Amino acid sequence: MIKRTGAYTIAFESQPVIAGWGSVVGKKEAEGPLKNYFDKIIYDSYDGCDTFEQAESMFQGEALEKALERSKTHANEVDCVFAGDLLNQCIGSSFGLMKFGIPYLGQYGACSTMAQSLIMAASAIESGGAKVSAASSHFCSAERQYRFPLEYGGVRTPTAQWTVTGAGSCILKSLKKGICVARATVGRIVDLGVSDANNMGAAMTPAAAQTLECYLEDTKTSPEDYDMIITGDLGEVGSKSLYDLLERDGINIRKQHNDCGLMIFERSNQDVHAGGSGCGCSAAVVCSHIVDELRAGRLGRVLFVGTGALLSAVSPLQGETVPSIAHAVLLTN
Amino acid sequence: MIKRTGAYTIAFESQPVIAGWGSVVGKKEAEGPLKNYFDKIIYDSYDGCDTFEQAESMFQGEALEKALERSKTHANEVDCVFAGDLLNQCIGSSFGLMKFGIPYLGQYGACSTMAQSLIMAASAIESGGAKVSAASSHFCSAERQYRFPLEYGGVRTPTAQWTVTGAGSCILKSLKKGICVARATVGRIVDLGVSDANNMGAAMTPAAAQTLECYLEDTKTSPEDYDMIITGDLGEVGSKSLYDLLERDGINIRKQHNDCGLMIFERSNQDVHAGGSGCGCSAAVVCSHIVDELRAGRLGRVLFVGTGALLSAVSPLQGETVPSIAHAVLLTN
Repeated sequence: MIKRTGAYTIAFESQPVIAGWGSVVGKKEAEGPLKNYFDKIIYDSYDGCDTFEQAESMFQGEALEKALERSKTHANEVDCVFAGDLLNQCIGSSFGLMKFGIPYLGQYGACSTMAQSLIMAASAIESGGAKVSAASSHFCSAERQYRFPLEYGGVRTPTAQWTVTGAGSCILKSLKKGICVARATVGRIVDLGVSDANNMGAAMTPAAAQTLECYLEDTKTSPEDYDMIITGDLGEVGSKSLYDLLERDGINIRKQHNDCGLMIFERSNQDVHAGGSGCGCSAAVVCSHIVDELRAGRLGRVLFVGTGALLSAVSPLQGETVPSIAHAVLLTN
Repeated sequence: MIKRTGAYTIAFESQPVIAGWGSVVGKKEAEGPLKNYFDKIIYDSYDGCDTFEQAESMFQGEALEKALERSKTHANEVDCVFAGDLLNQCIGSSFGLMKFGIPYLGQYGACSTMAQSLIMAASAIESGGAKVSAASSHFCSAERQYRFPLEYGGVRTPTAQWTVTGAGSCILKSLKKGICVARATVGRIVDLGVSDANNMGAAMTPAAAQTLECYLEDTKTSPEDYDMIITGDLGEVGSKSLYDLLERDGINIRKQHNDCGLMIFERSNQDVHAGGSGCGCSAAVVCSHIVDELRAGRLGRVLFVGTGALLSAVSPLQGETVPSIAHAVLLTN
């Protein structure tokens, strides 16, 4: 059963458990603080392919393979994959996952895609069988699509975030034990008028605050009830704004909070400006470090708030501001 | 409960019913055979906005407003909208639906999006409340994004389909009576190597055949068990190929079959080549004519097979072929 526990929050009563997980990242991510947690590091930006887009597809496939292996599941046993990425028409996911022959439902939530696909997979778990939740991004394909070709050598603003090259994949099954996707709050789109497409952190913060406040209110819990509240990905600028916004409403998350975009890179020496971003950032961090810590019992209750900026490369050129969204997912061990 | 009734097919046991529906189309669509079925006709391609993209967003909003009105539902009562479109990063849906303040989960299934979002909404119905399934497309925004700006006056090939300017929206509730989303088959991605991005019908046919065969096998039914089998959108080329593919496996759907892309335009005098296409095509046809016929009892069991070509504007230029997908949804009255 999926039960509503508040205006916007649902509880999954069929115990959707992360039975398998896999993460794949690029060279730069493997030079960051989480290097020992990732399953696979691909040092070649092309991953042996002809294009960055094909490489991103490969990453998705490799992360899923690892997740299948870990959960001792054959692709045939999976009856649905919910996946998405930043590329136009989500070709990172569709091209990368095609070979598995798993029924496919493409998701688009920008950088909130991993949270969204976890919610979709957990919701679907009731029909039995295994479900996949997956997301990816690639620095080079994202730069080309949203900003400039790399060859142009464009200068990045201090508020800009660095799109993570990576992918994460989870197999969900209804099991008695394991890391459970326990609750979720599906977010509403928020637009407070940020028009700087190089300041995603600022654009996404109001959505993160709204969803987090909804979740806490619906579940009648407070930040202290969680070992970690992890956003993905507000970066440095957005994280600070989030503290400000929440504190105006009397909520202090400074002790529990971390951000996938701040965890994956060492800002002081990796030249990533405000931190990491991209669907692959929270996907790779959740499907490696977070799962590991939950399994080891070092974390017990993690509230993962995936955040996404719902712009396209065209919309800011047409004078649109940047709407954003955030979805919350409670992971427990 | 969502119950699996075969390898790929599920049955929705909580009676997700189409409690409200709305359709909005442009001028050309309103000159076609279904003109009397649509709720709203917008004669201005810009719908009073500055860009085609904004107009597409308006269409989504207008279709949803009509659906809300029909089902006597306030936007506040809807706890999730599943929506998508063809625009990069699905901005047609996100910008168009933002103002309603409904929790939002973006879907991408190319022209299969309406079928996909119906499946998602029906799956989610169990948590109670109302859900929205919606999709849109716009000829002018699609041409600019996938092909050429309209000012270029590009010549279209005979196999090309005409992207429908339109949107459709459904409100699903768990009710005892009404048009029910009874069963669904989530499709797998198929790629038989069609590389002509101007022949989507051919590219999507293998996916339609695979999903339809799966559905019939899983449910142990035959085409005669349905009043109508409606694809969206294979057009003229794809529909004929579908008959050929299915007949090799001993399945004849010629009597029951129609295609949203063939129904919405009069090919003989509307210069649409192989027929209509786009997320908005099946969305507008299903949320008008099909719902009307089911309500009037002229149709009792309609199998809607939404088909999508999972390419981007970039992928064919990178030498990729066109993968496709199809999702089947059984509508009953």
